[in-house]
Amino acid sequence: MKDCRTPSYTVDADVKVNGHAFTNNSDDSNGSILHGSSTNIVWHKSSVEKIDRQELLQQKGCVIWITGLSGSGKSTVACALTRALHARGKMTYILDGDNVRHGLNRDLTFKAEDRAENIRRIGEIAKLFADAGVICIASVISPYRKDRDTCRSILPDGDFVEVFMDIPLCTCEARDPKGLYKLARAGKIKGFTGIDDPYEAPLNPEIVLQQGEVCPPPEAMAEKVISYLEAKGYLHA
Amino acid sequence: MKDCRTPSYTVDADVKVNGHAFTNNSDDSNGSILHGSSTNIVWHKSSVEKIDRQELLQQKGCVIWITGLSGSGKSTVACALTRALHARGKMTYILDGDNVRHGLNRDLTFKAEDRAENIRRIGEIAKLFADAGVICIASVISPYRKDRDTCRSILPDGDFVEVFMDIPLCTCEARDPKGLYKLARAGKIKGFTGIDDPYEAPLNPEIVLQQGEVCPPPEAMAEKVISYLEAKGYLHA
Repeated sequence: MKDCRTPSYTVDADVKVNGHAFTNNSDDSNGSILHGSSTNIVWHKSSVEKIDRQELLQQKGCVIWITGLSGSGKSTVACALTRALHARGKMTYILDGDNVRHGLNRDLTFKAEDRAENIRRIGEIAKLFADAGVICIASVISPYRKDRDTCRSILPDGDFVEVFMDIPLCTCEARDPKGLYKLARAGKIKGFTGIDDPYEAPLNPEIVLQQGEVCPPPEAMAEKVISYLEAKGYLHA
Repeated sequence: MKDCRTPSYTVDADVKVNGHAFTNNSDDSNGSILHGSSTNIVWHKSSVEKIDRQELLQQKGCVIWITGLSGSGKSTVACALTRALHARGKMTYILDGDNVRHGLNRDLTFKAEDRAENIRRIGEIAKLFADAGVICIASVISPYRKDRDTCRSILPDGDFVEVFMDIPLCTCEARDPKGLYKLARAGKIKGFTGIDDPYEAPLNPEIVLQQGEVCPPPEAMAEKVISYLEAKGYLHA
């Protein structure tokens, strides 16, 4: 029997230097190191890794990032996608810009810097879900290319699947499911994407969902995403 | 075939008033409503609900919140727990204070208000994972009762399982796996929990993990948590 005063086990941790000379770190956000930096933090290796969770779930974790104008059908496609994947026994989770604003991002306003922070945080959470092995579906206007590219950059290559809802503004405005375009046109909403704030279309999205003469049903759009995931091997461990 | 100008489908959304008279909302963080509030946001109903994901995973989503001093063995127990649950085919994910500081919370310092924000965000992310159906293991010192209770309050009753690592300071300090107590004693770390900042022990934690004359192996501690989860029905859908 071991005496507990002699450490019977050590914390399973790798020390990362983070570019600082000072490599001692603060355990889970405890204490500030003088003449150190808050970036001096230990990365804990988990004994169950991403690959193990993927094996359990029989899929690969990734982020499906659906971007497009308000009213372009992002949430509708996200729902159709989660339904179709669930029906195949795949584990998904939708991060919706609005939902996250209710919780984690409730401290954020709609100022420019807060909007960027909103997207950054959604990207970071999506990354955690992908690391968990989940197919994480983020449904957010995310109008700026730079913000989306930052989210892409923090994920392993290939794990960020950008889906562009390429629906003309006039169509989105005609739908106006929440009456927001009407308010924006009336000047009651300022900085509304597509009206008085730009939407920067993706330059190289993995998937483009368009309407032709008629708008495909959301299930058909979801199927296009699923075909991509299947082809890239994300629906198997 | 439907003409897309006539909305062929509507966004699947419930409007929540959030205590404001103005119920029109901004789609995924787009635009600021004049004389409105950034809290006026739509909650999107997902077509795959928590109960469906739990059925898929054959478990119930919850948060195991492991709190205790630095060096008390939180991460070690978290790792043993995730290993044991994974071996039973259960889907877990560890949120570690340090890991999250690398990503989502990289903007936070160790100032008092940032520490509270760090815990708030971890609580919100844990809530999302629990909603996803995952058994989310948060391993964070979280020294203040108020911050932990806030995390508890945002979860459905019973879904927040507080695990108190009740290990004496002298033991933690003798272990000092990261050399932090030594630095704190030398005055090189300020505001270190247990040294010059308080640790407020939980008043009614669901589980207390203690050492007696000898320190139980982490697997035995993890088993205590698993017995609790089993008894409360979290290991079945």
